[in-house]
Amino acid sequence: MNNTKLKKGVRLGIDLGGTQLKAALVAEDGKVIRHQSFESPLRPHDFAKTLYHNVKTWLRPSLVGTGVAVAGDVDPTRGLVRFSPNLKWRNVPLKKILLKYPFPSPLLIENDATAAAWGVHHLDLAGQSRSLLVLTLGTGVGGGIVIDGKLYHGATGSAGEWGHMTIDPDGIPCGCGSRGCLETCVGGIYLVRKALSLLKSSPKNPLHRTGVTPKALYELALKGDPLSLKVWKEAGKALGIGLASLINIFNPDTIVFTGGVAGASKLLMRFADKEIKQRAFRTGRDRVRIRTSSHRTTVGVVGAALLVP
Amino acid sequence: MNNTKLKKGVRLGIDLGGTQLKAALVAEDGKVIRHQSFESPLRPHDFAKTLYHNVKTWLRPSLVGTGVAVAGDVDPTRGLVRFSPNLKWRNVPLKKILLKYPFPSPLLIENDATAAAWGVHHLDLAGQSRSLLVLTLGTGVGGGIVIDGKLYHGATGSAGEWGHMTIDPDGIPCGCGSRGCLETCVGGIYLVRKALSLLKSSPKNPLHRTGVTPKALYELALKGDPLSLKVWKEAGKALGIGLASLINIFNPDTIVFTGGVAGASKLLMRFADKEIKQRAFRTGRDRVRIRTSSHRTTVGVVGAALLVP
Repeated sequence: MNNTKLKKGVRLGIDLGGTQLKAALVAEDGKVIRHQSFESPLRPHDFAKTLYHNVKTWLRPSLVGTGVAVAGDVDPTRGLVRFSPNLKWRNVPLKKILLKYPFPSPLLIENDATAAAWGVHHLDLAGQSRSLLVLTLGTGVGGGIVIDGKLYHGATGSAGEWGHMTIDPDGIPCGCGSRGCLETCVGGIYLVRKALSLLKSSPKNPLHRTGVTPKALYELALKGDPLSLKVWKEAGKALGIGLASLINIFNPDTIVFTGGVAGASKLLMRFADKEIKQRAFRTGRDRVRIRTSSHRTTVGVVGAALLVP
Repeated sequence: MNNTKLKKGVRLGIDLGGTQLKAALVAEDGKVIRHQSFESPLRPHDFAKTLYHNVKTWLRPSLVGTGVAVAGDVDPTRGLVRFSPNLKWRNVPLKKILLKYPFPSPLLIENDATAAAWGVHHLDLAGQSRSLLVLTLGTGVGGGIVIDGKLYHGATGSAGEWGHMTIDPDGIPCGCGSRGCLETCVGGIYLVRKALSLLKSSPKNPLHRTGVTPKALYELALKGDPLSLKVWKEAGKALGIGLASLINIFNPDTIVFTGGVAGASKLLMRFADKEIKQRAFRTGRDRVRIRTSSHRTTVGVVGAALLVP
């Protein structure tokens, strides 16, 4: 049984990341009918204009609405982007700006990780979870919460920021102003930094040739490179500590990873499992399913589209 | 507007702690009509019998149901106490045992901290919160979650165990098998241990006379005793780290403390505030109200009674 009923019809979904803009026409069952990716202009009005010119041939009266996912702190009730560090936006009334163009109504705006959680709920779980946590593991770490088939937003639309739960109170400084956040342990940008600092004392490591990226670190770890393995081991341990806390706090039936770094989730979980066993209550950890999204490239834009009820 | 509608009528509420048993008749508005406390026998059948003999004169056909709060891991759907370390119960079919006596039906069983959260929702907030976290600060640390006027249970009824979120991965061992749990930083039993260890190098500290209890620690801290202040300062700092994570994760509109140690919540918050400011996102921390229950002695038994819908 799918516990989330959506009106029949095709929606326009928009996923606005820091550099890339994805647009898609999506049916109520999550099927992508058309899609397109293009570079996103940074200024809100330019973004609206570029978007419109790229998708205007898709628009037709039968579309049932538009859902927009934005990387940043979003107020969904007002359609406002409070702050997006990636886009360098502050208090942008995005809904109002977009509605100057004839995009299908209703038009809903949501944080991108929250929208991705909604996409996972539909694409990976067919709406079957009652208590779902989604962790987006990418350059940063974000997430979303789906309870009883509904997105949980919190008081200001900012829930699900487990990237900024403290793992190590005296850990390294985080971009958010805190220290030792989960993001500083698992975020792609921090994995790269960690590797770079370790490389100083390993002048012959193959990473000097490949360049240091999460992908290179992953591939070398699979080949047994000790330095790369060390980076993933520490990240996995921190992820396990975070997951154990989330299991004790939420007692979820399902946890799903998505995002670029989630490609390494098996490796991460190899090191996370021990922490979960030590730290999470048995009842909760026996029940929860932890898995990786099979739709990592589309959950964002599909989730955005399916925001339209 | 109270977003939680309860049927009119009087309920029987039971709050079963490790040593004390509270019973009360409670109206749908949370008003306590009668109440009684007595020592709780440890064996489940003895408990049911004692309870019945103590409250049988209260029972009448007009009562609309019974709610029972138990310290431990409870499966509310089956009325089962999976595990209660305090009571030394394991897999006790409590609902079945209680229903051998003519207690009013329906009879619902719930974790005590979850029931207390429900009591806070009614007594302190008149049902007005949309996203409420309750922290029970006592010998241990527990809690409950109320979302959109409904208790959030999680997949197995075990949600809200923030006493066992990791604050310091290498912290002191916790009774749960993990290390550095919030409970090991703020739980009354750990405050006492911490003070005892500090006292070894303070032979003239007044705690030697008063005896070391959370209450004595609190009163001496108010008088400026450096050792007692140090204990609360470290506890407050850890509490702040935990609260910041919870604000980022849940983005709640309200956080309420209850339980014995919550009497010191102002003192704790004096040290917690700095951590919250440093670690929680501004939007979330600006919105959340953090306060202490005005009904600390009754939220448990009233919350239990009001489990009856």
